Amino acid sequence: MELLTYSLENKGNLPVYMYLYECIKNDILTGKILPGERIPSKRVLASHLGVAIITVENAYAQLITEGYIISREKRGYYVSEDMELSSLPIDRSGELPILSDNEKAAKVETSPLLADFSVNSIKSDSFPFDSWAKLMRRNMLDHEAGFLQAPTGKGVYELRKAIADYLYKNKGMTVDADRIIVGPGTEYLHHILIQLIGRSCFVAVENPGYKKVGQIYETNGVRVIYIPVDEKGMKIDRLKNSNVKLVHLSPAHHFPTGTVMPIHRRSRLLNWAAEQDAYIIEDDYDSEFRFEGRPVTTLYSMDSSNVIYMNTFTKTLAPSIRIAYMVLPEKLHRRYNEKLSFYSGSVSGFEQYTLAAFISEGYYERHIRRVRNQYKKCRQEMLSALEESGILECIEITEDKAGLQLAFRVRPEYLKNAVGLEQKALENGVKIVPFTAYCYGNGEYYGDRYLLYYSDTEKSRMISAFCVIKKLLKN
Amino acid sequence: MELLTYSLENKGNLPVYMYLYECIKNDILTGKILPGERIPSKRVLASHLGVAIITVENAYAQLITEGYIISREKRGYYVSEDMELSSLPIDRSGELPILSDNEKAAKVETSPLLADFSVNSIKSDSFPFDSWAKLMRRNMLDHEAGFLQAPTGKGVYELRKAIADYLYKNKGMTVDADRIIVGPGTEYLHHILIQLIGRSCFVAVENPGYKKVGQIYETNGVRVIYIPVDEKGMKIDRLKNSNVKLVHLSPAHHFPTGTVMPIHRRSRLLNWAAEQDAYIIEDDYDSEFRFEGRPVTTLYSMDSSNVIYMNTFTKTLAPSIRIAYMVLPEKLHRRYNEKLSFYSGSVSGFEQYTLAAFISEGYYERHIRRVRNQYKKCRQEMLSALEESGILECIEITEDKAGLQLAFRVRPEYLKNAVGLEQKALENGVKIVPFTAYCYGNGEYYGDRYLLYYSDTEKSRMISAFCVIKKLLKN
Repeated sequence: MELLTYSLENKGNLPVYMYLYECIKNDILTGKILPGERIPSKRVLASHLGVAIITVENAYAQLITEGYIISREKRGYYVSEDMELSSLPIDRSGELPILSDNEKAAKVETSPLLADFSVNSIKSDSFPFDSWAKLMRRNMLDHEAGFLQAPTGKGVYELRKAIADYLYKNKGMTVDADRIIVGPGTEYLHHILIQLIGRSCFVAVENPGYKKVGQIYETNGVRVIYIPVDEKGMKIDRLKNSNVKLVHLSPAHHFPTGTVMPIHRRSRLLNWAAEQDAYIIEDDYDSEFRFEGRPVTTLYSMDSSNVIYMNTFTKTLAPSIRIAYMVLPEKLHRRYNEKLSFYSGSVSGFEQYTLAAFISEGYYERHIRRVRNQYKKCRQEMLSALEESGILECIEITEDKAGLQLAFRVRPEYLKNAVGLEQKALENGVKIVPFTAYCYGNGEYYGDRYLLYYSDTEKSRMISAFCVIKKLLKN
Repeated sequence: MELLTYSLENKGNLPVYMYLYECIKNDILTGKILPGERIPSKRVLASHLGVAIITVENAYAQLITEGYIISREKRGYYVSEDMELSSLPIDRSGELPILSDNEKAAKVETSPLLADFSVNSIKSDSFPFDSWAKLMRRNMLDHEAGFLQAPTGKGVYELRKAIADYLYKNKGMTVDADRIIVGPGTEYLHHILIQLIGRSCFVAVENPGYKKVGQIYETNGVRVIYIPVDEKGMKIDRLKNSNVKLVHLSPAHHFPTGTVMPIHRRSRLLNWAAEQDAYIIEDDYDSEFRFEGRPVTTLYSMDSSNVIYMNTFTKTLAPSIRIAYMVLPEKLHRRYNEKLSFYSGSVSGFEQYTLAAFISEGYYERHIRRVRNQYKKCRQEMLSALEESGILECIEITEDKAGLQLAFRVRPEYLKNAVGLEQKALENGVKIVPFTAYCYGNGEYYGDRYLLYYSDTEKSRMISAFCVIKKLLKN
């Protein structure tokens, strides 16, 4: 093992830990450090480079999250062995990510329950009505005739440009605004994709996952394959020898497991798509809600030729705002222009112009930051309520790094009492969601796991609620 | 011939001519006056009932428009002979109609042309920004949490209720708000229909007509039959022995000919649909813009069991507002609930609530009245410019009663110079649209016809423009 030496003067505007992350990633991608090779301990590298240990820790954490390195207990850090690097360009990502479109997530309910962890209930006061109304009004005065024109099928150019700039600045993605298609929700965008790709092939979706995606394709006469998810995300080996031409997944944060697909599986996936002339829908729906480290690099940034990047404003702004978008790879974009450019705009011009100003004038980033902090606080409250309730004796948190919910599994010794847990909890006034609700067919593999959506329930009530579950598990 | 006697005390709130129209229609539908029977002259009936001749004239005009009676030159008025009445319930229609969704129509352009009659260019200043912004703001303050919730797939209930009330009040249609589906344009609604009806049957559309409708179905793998239109609308005999399960038409005002489908053909169409278990999409897209007489009775009012009533707010409010709706017949509604209720809302909740208030608080009716008057004025300007230019020597106006454009045909003696007229006119700075642009396949039958969209071009320029065309025709 050689000591890694990087000149910190070249870091530019990047925080030190991100620069370090980029340098090590580069060395791995270019083969300077080999798969299986051990890398220095945090303490050693920190002292060697003259930086704080926490800085190295943060860089390593990001590398682990993205699958470049692994940590072996009591033995140190190693470059991941199952890399298949081939043709992975290096991207330059930014700081923040965005949130998005799944329709259930932010339903507001007044409930007679002790605690409802089945839907997100904390966003009701977070929509920036004032700025939104101000921009809408200003647009109405400014744009006059243009503001009233029918938006084109792809969407208003100003909005597509604002999205492209945002993606560049915040995720390091280089996106041609012309290849962005705006629609009133991801469902509409899937309909467009069906028209582009046709109905004779198969579509693959994650299992467990958002069931609605498969439902949309099936309802439209496209055959759907449900592919199991393991601890590294979708088992992409199952795609081989299939007639799959379109794969839907969320590599940055799988729902509901929270898995981040590691780099080696990502590159295998991209290689498969290139060989098969297939497309990957990268649904980055909750990428703005990663609480620790940088946003995860997008598949699109790794290789955009077969990736359809999809995201939505529904989760970050409000469920009532129906605006989502996708970035088409070049081939599909050409097909769109030939075949589907006759369509009219599908989203109100008023709201498109308003959102364009909202993004390009920085309101959106500030809003995201505010909402993310709000979630972070809720998450912290929930984590300490879990701690204080003593329930961690019976359950283990499996995911709390990102998204709008925590995931937990029941510890093996308490599994016998976990049968019908959600029903028993509900009878006692506590609503939780089992993973099996998101499984297609036999979901037994996930029979021990549950979700807790963040909630603005006060902490003392949360503690009581967790005590209820603890009692049920301990019997 | 017996003299018709009606007691005018029963007329309620109806204008006398409308009451008279209803009475005579009733007598025809119930067989009190028989097909082929002569009815009194305007003068005789007016004196018999003690009303003004103009009142009877208006009532007769509406009966003629809808095909109940015909006028034989120098011989008087007769009940139409080709009635097939069967099962036609009598409806109670109101006063005003609405406009709508075809996406091209209201494009605003600054043009170096002498006159552009190819797109509607007069609505740019008519959108009621103030009331809209006021209601939007009030809703933002009032609704709080509810306003931010995801709208259901069918749309926000408040909006569907407001639409149902509007249809009752203004068109006499009895509509269950629950059967209304709101979408971001009629294109989206056609996609929903494809999912409800499937891809194995044929869809019939009008030829000439809005080409986009056929295009949507073809793009989605549904086979389309283009059915010719004669002076009574779609030749529905062509539907017999076909595998057509869905027919799209605009019986109140066919585009571009302006034909109103007469009652006997309507009832044949309804009977055919009932026998074949097929559905009729009644696209009432410009029904708010009938300038003379009452709105034409809808097919839906005659028999709603196989009629999908479709309309949009795009034409009446602004092309940038993407809100359309359809009313599903009971069977399809049940199928929607079973199969498609998983879809999320497709139109911004903000705009749905705003439009709901805009309609239910009377702003919409006032707006329509204002816009209709504006169009009426433009039409009048255009008609007098046509008159003053002397072009009526060479052309004949074939339609000016409704819609956002006039239609004309070149008189037979000038046809030899009409070849390539739109091109020659364009070279001279005048843009007009030939009917053939809306024909599928061989459109020769309409080779002598053109459209003139209303325009805010000043009258003197219009006169010059018409002189250009006259010169081209006279050579």
